[in-house]
Amino acid sequence: MRGFAPEEFAIRVARAQHRMQETGLSALLLTTEPQLRYFTGYLTRFWESPTRPWFLIVPISGKPVAVIPSIGAALMAQTWIDDIRTWSAPDLEDDGVSLLADTLRELTPENASIGCPDGHETHVRMPLADLRHLESAIGARQITGDHGILRALRMVKSDAEIAKIRTACQIGAHAFARVPEIASAGTPLDQIFRNFQRLCLEEGADWVPYLAGGAEQGGYSDVISPATQTPLRSGDVLMLDTGLVHDGYFCDYDRNWSVGPASKAIRDAHARLVEASDAAFDQARPGVTASQLFHTMNTILTDGSAGTDAGRLGHGLGMSLTEWPSLIPDDHTELQPGMVLTLEPGIAVDGKILVHEENILITEGAPEFLSPRIGPEIAEI
Amino acid sequence: MRGFAPEEFAIRVARAQHRMQETGLSALLLTTEPQLRYFTGYLTRFWESPTRPWFLIVPISGKPVAVIPSIGAALMAQTWIDDIRTWSAPDLEDDGVSLLADTLRELTPENASIGCPDGHETHVRMPLADLRHLESAIGARQITGDHGILRALRMVKSDAEIAKIRTACQIGAHAFARVPEIASAGTPLDQIFRNFQRLCLEEGADWVPYLAGGAEQGGYSDVISPATQTPLRSGDVLMLDTGLVHDGYFCDYDRNWSVGPASKAIRDAHARLVEASDAAFDQARPGVTASQLFHTMNTILTDGSAGTDAGRLGHGLGMSLTEWPSLIPDDHTELQPGMVLTLEPGIAVDGKILVHEENILITEGAPEFLSPRIGPEIAEI
Repeated sequence: MRGFAPEEFAIRVARAQHRMQETGLSALLLTTEPQLRYFTGYLTRFWESPTRPWFLIVPISGKPVAVIPSIGAALMAQTWIDDIRTWSAPDLEDDGVSLLADTLRELTPENASIGCPDGHETHVRMPLADLRHLESAIGARQITGDHGILRALRMVKSDAEIAKIRTACQIGAHAFARVPEIASAGTPLDQIFRNFQRLCLEEGADWVPYLAGGAEQGGYSDVISPATQTPLRSGDVLMLDTGLVHDGYFCDYDRNWSVGPASKAIRDAHARLVEASDAAFDQARPGVTASQLFHTMNTILTDGSAGTDAGRLGHGLGMSLTEWPSLIPDDHTELQPGMVLTLEPGIAVDGKILVHEENILITEGAPEFLSPRIGPEIAEI
Repeated sequence: MRGFAPEEFAIRVARAQHRMQETGLSALLLTTEPQLRYFTGYLTRFWESPTRPWFLIVPISGKPVAVIPSIGAALMAQTWIDDIRTWSAPDLEDDGVSLLADTLRELTPENASIGCPDGHETHVRMPLADLRHLESAIGARQITGDHGILRALRMVKSDAEIAKIRTACQIGAHAFARVPEIASAGTPLDQIFRNFQRLCLEEGADWVPYLAGGAEQGGYSDVISPATQTPLRSGDVLMLDTGLVHDGYFCDYDRNWSVGPASKAIRDAHARLVEASDAAFDQARPGVTASQLFHTMNTILTDGSAGTDAGRLGHGLGMSLTEWPSLIPDDHTELQPGMVLTLEPGIAVDGKILVHEENILITEGAPEFLSPRIGPEIAEI
C-alpha cells in the first residue's frame, strides 16, 4: 500500500499534541520536508526547488493547518489535511509571512509558545530575514524549540513505516546482488554509479537520492565522494552505499567487493567490520543505549588500529537518509521497539579505509536485519 | 572537463570580496550546499544527510576557510581550499559552533558585519538554537544579510558553468527523445517515471534529483506530484519534467505527449504554450526584465482563459534546480549575458492544466535554446 491511512496521521498528531500539552507549547511550526510529510503525508520531489517556503502548523487541538504556495494546493488537498491556506509564491514582498503570522495569531493565544524544531539535525527552511519578520509579526508569542517532540516521535517507527523501509532494503538487496553484472576490472567508477542507480530503479526504487562509494587499491580514501572516471583494477576494493527511496522511506546500507582476490589485510578488515556490526546487532535490544552500541563496535574496530573520520558508527533512518540517534559515545538514547538503525563500522587499513553498513529493526526481543545479513568474507568480482 | 580550474573559484571569491567591501561586510558565512560549492567546488551527495552542519567563511581577503565535519576533510582537501578546520560531528554538546565562532573571531574585527544570505530563496542550514549560540559567541560582531551578493554572483554564469548546463540539457534531450520506448497506452505512470530516470542515467546523467509530471485525460491536475500507478490511456496528456544533474549543474525542462490523437483543445493549448515561450525567447535580450518576459507570456496565455497556480512563468537555473530571477510581475531583474533561464508557461484547459518548459541562455545578442526548441504540435505516442 502507498501512503498511510488517515488514522496513522491522526495518531501522530495526537501524540505530538499530548507532548505539546506537557511542555506548554500552543503549536508546532514546521518548515522542512520530513516535518511536513510526517503529519500530512505530503510527498513530492518539488522540495528540490529551494525557491518556495512551506509551512505546517500543528495546533494544540484539531488537525494541522497547511500554509503553502498555491502550486502545492492540489497535491495537499489529496492528503487528510483540509485547512489549506495558500499564497502565490514566489512573492518578493511577502512570501507567505503575513499569511503565516495571521494563521498563528488565529490558532494560538497571545502569550503562546510556538515550538519550532531548533536542535541537532534540524534547520528552519525559510529565509532568516522572514523568520525575524515573523517573530515581530506575532506579538508576544515566542518561537521556541520543540522540546525534541519531532525527534522523539519520528525515532520510533510504526508498523506501516517499517514495512516501507523493509521494502526499500529489499530493493537495495536485489540491486546489490546484480553488481557483478555492471562492475569488473576495467569498468570506470562513474559508469558503475550510473548503472547501479539504474539497477535500483529496475528493482523498484521510486528514486535514488543518495549514492556514494569509492574504489581504490586496498580500500578507499573517503566515503562521501562522487564517482571518478577511473576504471576498476585488480586490487581495488569497491564500495557502494545507497540511500534509495520507496514511498518516501529510505534504506541506507553498503556493500564491498574485492576486484580480484583480496589481500589478507582486506579480508581481515572486512571480517572485523562484520564482527563489529554482528556484535552490535546481538546487543541491540530495548533499553540498550546508542552509546553502548558505539562502544561495542569501537572496541572491536580499534583494537590496535586507528579509527576513521566518520564521527559515528551508525544512526537512525526512515523518512530521511539519516536520523536520530547517533551511535557515538555521548548519545545515551535508549533503544525502543520500532527504531530502525544503521550499524556502520569503519576501519583504517594502511592509510585507506573500509566501511560496512547494515540496517536493523529494534523489536521487543531480538533485533531483525532489514538489509540481508552478510558473512565475514568480502565478495569478489 | 569535470569541475573547474582553481582560477574560476579565485575570480568568484574576488568578485564577492569586491562587493563585500562595497557593502561593509567583513566576511560571508555560508551554510548550504550550493553556497559552499560555488566558492570551493566541493561536490558530494552527502548533503542528503541532514545530520551535520557545514560552514564556509569567505573573509574580506584571502581564500575561503572551511569549517566542516571531519568526515568531509578528505574530499574538501581535493579542492583549492587549504584552510580546512574540522570537528568530529555529530557532537551533541557543541556541533561545530565553538570552532566556527573561534574562526570568525580570528578572521574578522570586533565590530564586524558578517553576511549570511537571509533573503528570498535562502535558508540557514544549521540548527536555529546553534545560530543563536553563535550570535552570542562572537561578541559585538553582527550576523546580517549578505546584501544579495550570492544571488548576484550566481545569477550570471561563467562559460564553464554554461557548458555544464548545456551538457545537462543535451542529456535530457536524448532521454526525452526515447520516451516512446518506455511509454504507451497501458503503461503505468510510475513505471514510466522509473524508466525515464533510467534513460537519463543511460544518456549520461550523474544523478536525477528531480522528476515530476502527470498523465490524465485532457491535461493533468498539478505538476509536482509523484507518479501514480495508473496506466496511460488514450486521451491522456503525459508530461515529464526533469531536473537531472551533470557535474553539479541542472537542466530543468519538460515535454508533453498525447496518448493517441490529441483533441483540438489540447493541440491548441500546446501551440499556445509554445507561442508564449517563443515570444519570451524572442524578447530575451540584455536589459529586458524578468517581469517583461512574464507579461509577454501571460498576455498570450490568459487571452480569455484562466492561469495556473504555479506562481511564475519561469526562473533561473544552474547549481540548483531553481534559482533567481523569477518570471513574475514584481521581479524587475534585468537580463544579463550569461543568465540561464527557464521559460515555463502554463495554461488551464477545461479544469486541467498543461505546462511547457524550455531552458535558454541569455547572450550579448539573440538568446540561445539550451533545450532543443520544439514546434507547436504536441507529440503523439
